[in-house]
Amino acid sequence: MGKMGSEMLIYVLLLMAGVLASGQSSPVKIWPMPASVSYGHTHLYLTSDFGFSSNYGSEILKDAFDRMLALIKLDHVIDANFSAFNSSSLLQGLHIIISSPNGQLQYGVDESYKLIVPSPEKPAYAHLEAKTVYGALQGLQTFSQLCYFSVTSRVLQIDMSPWTIIDQPRFSYRGLLIDTSRHYLPVPVIKKVIDSMSYAKLNVMHWHIVDTQSFPLEIPSYPKLWDGAYSPSERYTVADAADIVSYAQKRGINVLAEIDVPGHALSWGTGYPSLWPSKDCQQPLDISNEFTFKVIDGILSDFSKIFNFKFVHLGGDEVNTSCWTTTPRIRNWLKKHGMNESQAYQYFVLRAQNIALSHGYEIINWYSSYTSYLAKQQYYTSYSHIEHHREETFNDFGNKLSRKTVVHNWYLLIFITQT
Amino acid sequence: MGKMGSEMLIYVLLLMAGVLASGQSSPVKIWPMPASVSYGHTHLYLTSDFGFSSNYGSEILKDAFDRMLALIKLDHVIDANFSAFNSSSLLQGLHIIISSPNGQLQYGVDESYKLIVPSPEKPAYAHLEAKTVYGALQGLQTFSQLCYFSVTSRVLQIDMSPWTIIDQPRFSYRGLLIDTSRHYLPVPVIKKVIDSMSYAKLNVMHWHIVDTQSFPLEIPSYPKLWDGAYSPSERYTVADAADIVSYAQKRGINVLAEIDVPGHALSWGTGYPSLWPSKDCQQPLDISNEFTFKVIDGILSDFSKIFNFKFVHLGGDEVNTSCWTTTPRIRNWLKKHGMNESQAYQYFVLRAQNIALSHGYEIINWYSSYTSYLAKQQYYTSYSHIEHHREETFNDFGNKLSRKTVVHNWYLLIFITQT
Repeated sequence: MGKMGSEMLIYVLLLMAGVLASGQSSPVKIWPMPASVSYGHTHLYLTSDFGFSSNYGSEILKDAFDRMLALIKLDHVIDANFSAFNSSSLLQGLHIIISSPNGQLQYGVDESYKLIVPSPEKPAYAHLEAKTVYGALQGLQTFSQLCYFSVTSRVLQIDMSPWTIIDQPRFSYRGLLIDTSRHYLPVPVIKKVIDSMSYAKLNVMHWHIVDTQSFPLEIPSYPKLWDGAYSPSERYTVADAADIVSYAQKRGINVLAEIDVPGHALSWGTGYPSLWPSKDCQQPLDISNEFTFKVIDGILSDFSKIFNFKFVHLGGDEVNTSCWTTTPRIRNWLKKHGMNESQAYQYFVLRAQNIALSHGYEIINWYSSYTSYLAKQQYYTSYSHIEHHREETFNDFGNKLSRKTVVHNWYLLIFITQT
Repeated sequence: MGKMGSEMLIYVLLLMAGVLASGQSSPVKIWPMPASVSYGHTHLYLTSDFGFSSNYGSEILKDAFDRMLALIKLDHVIDANFSAFNSSSLLQGLHIIISSPNGQLQYGVDESYKLIVPSPEKPAYAHLEAKTVYGALQGLQTFSQLCYFSVTSRVLQIDMSPWTIIDQPRFSYRGLLIDTSRHYLPVPVIKKVIDSMSYAKLNVMHWHIVDTQSFPLEIPSYPKLWDGAYSPSERYTVADAADIVSYAQKRGINVLAEIDVPGHALSWGTGYPSLWPSKDCQQPLDISNEFTFKVIDGILSDFSKIFNFKFVHLGGDEVNTSCWTTTPRIRNWLKKHGMNESQAYQYFVLRAQNIALSHGYEIINWYSSYTSYLAKQQYYTSYSHIEHHREETFNDFGNKLSRKTVVHNWYLLIFITQT
């Protein structure tokens, strides 16, 4: 994966700010905008013991509710005299109904929900219903955006009641990429990113774990791989990674793990130098060495015990094959197998894909001219020019590829088009 | 208070980074460096139930200990097999002795401590002793910097044991300024700043609450003052401010509240336009209007119920008095009282100081050519050129003023010189 320039990041953030600003004409301040919203013009006030009840006894839901209340309060002190309020304007709690309590978090899980504030049957309560707990999590995020601490009423307040919101995501894959190879991110920082993603209803954290610069993750099958970390403390143990996956899942977010082979893998050779074509020419991974594919197999085997999202990302972009042709051992191997550089690149990517398939993963690769003709089972992600990502070109882009496509907006937002 | 340019901030941060980098030749990685440190060369490992005991039954201490452990863990999963460790290298807890349990947090409180790891008497424990709980808090910060999560041992580890650290602060006033007028900071952000200050053993949060741009704090005596906030939600209630003070005190940090009169107070007039010289000339505060001093009295009266640090900051810098001479009503008042602009400025600052004194505060003002000859009871803070703040000029600067001086390093660090 290539590095993103800070200028581009600023440009993208400005674009996003523009999108936000253009929505300011609507009185509905919910982001992202739900599929259907109706509202009124009365005020409601949350009681100091505002609680929740549900037909679904889940720690996930209880914890999410507690986080939501803290998020609304923003540490403000609630010191109102509730007896001064009209009791009909007080909201005492949120009731949550989940109709399919056994759903596991996976790609395509039902995230729809319906939020009614106040409930027509029980006007002292808000009503949230969803097919799955993950839909309920999205409904809680929406509810949190209806509430704010009012310095006038001194309580958590809802304006524009009654609300009826019926929502489901437009895109089933809504991702954000973090890159822990170029910059190590401490576990608490990754958790903050996950928290932030949940506020925006993003549901895939694309973890670009390793790259040329560093290899921060423990791989028990090949324990010297994380010798390629920046320093001993800039590492994640298997337990850390599993903790991150669990933390994300409790927030309705899948973790897409990535290794970027063969072109962004120089750091692998710190622990295992035989993965380099030579000491002086260290990338891409040595295609002529069976050990290379054993290591990939070991990594993906270990991944499968931690990262239980149905997809894995195998990178595959920006491969400069010159080290293969300038290293005599590899040049001879190519000759023996009758491959030119382009064919060798294809061979490597397909072989890595087959290893991932053997561990039960579906596959995503970066889009590039080299990989565009590769195996049909794969999803592509792209980081082509930003012009590609305007709304009207999404479908063209998908149609051109004629298969499922993850369109990637400068590492910030990822959508699967509806092709 | 003048605005600080971002270039200057970057410059100061680079200077600080330089200071940090220059310390890298020492194997002792404690910041700030304690007064006396000795160490050895053995490893210790904290048990998974590492706890603390004390002769002092204080929630402050218990909470600080819990925060410290979380800070060391950095969310890493401790999954070691402790039975594999040599029991003599295991540290089971920290014992804290406080000899003066009744000390209140105030300027000059004893912050000294002695930390011995492991205790010679009980080698399975670390030993921390301090005169006050605030000294113990500093000792906990130092202890936290001895510990780290090791990916090798899979536990919290201490290197270079045994440690004997005897420490007391070189400066009794170690501050950081936040400016909630130019940019509103949500309460959780202020709490993060306070957390960060505690890591660096800073002990005064100088809260530049209001200025020309906005008035975010509730003042019950004059309830329209916070009409000058940027928006209804960008405000602090009295309860919020009291919560911030309490949060800081539990971390050994005093809060220095500031109003900056008469020159940085335009936002006061949003709620009370009669504080402006005129609608077209809105600053400094109208010196000819008794209401101006009533409002200052009301603010400082309300402050005294929230901000119990012995000092209050009255600003007093950068006063352009032209609105006083161009507004006929005020020009006449000056003439009647036989004051030129400079005398009027002095009159205003001294009168505000007397109001603060009547509420039991000692006073700090910004240093400026106008205020340098003012009342002897005051402390000065300065934001002169950065050249003033080199170590060798601290004392010159203090001697020149011939009184207690708070030297202020671009709003980042504040020291009282030893004059």
